[in-house]
Amino acid sequence: MSKSIFYHAGCSVCVSAEHDIINLVGAENVEIVNIGENKARIKEAENAGVKSVPALVTPNGNTLHINFGASMSDVKG
Amino acid sequence: MSKSIFYHAGCSVCVSAEHDIINLVGAENVEIVNIGENKARIKEAENAGVKSVPALVTPNGNTLHINFGASMSDVKG
Repeated sequence: MSKSIFYHAGCSVCVSAEHDIINLVGAENVEIVNIGENKARIKEAENAGVKSVPALVTPNGNTLHINFGASMSDVKG
Repeated sequence: MSKSIFYHAGCSVCVSAEHDIINLVGAENVEIVNIGENKARIKEAENAGVKSVPALVTPNGNTLHINFGASMSDVKG
């Protein structure tokens, strides 16, 4: 199985969701990207359809927005 | 691993998310409940903290609201 990518920005909602996703999917199946710290990857996340964090982009390219931590404009600051 | 419960109400957003969750977590690890059809389980979902569907309640009791299909008041109709 290809990896999913979990985008977050370090907020408490993000961290909680990150733990849940890792428990459900398995740490080996998901790449964790903090776009609050790694702003170079914000564009990639937006191109994948991420509108808020935390969000999980699945191997087949669907974006699942999970709960609501912060909008992309908040992340960009 | 205990099962997660995926609550949905048959909407297109729900069905799309259901496919993604089954692909990610495995069909054997998640119970699918359509609370649009099975209204007896709406109360259970609300008690688990479900505020909109689709939502996934994890084995440790956290509720992940995934994208947004319908509010619980919409489901109750």
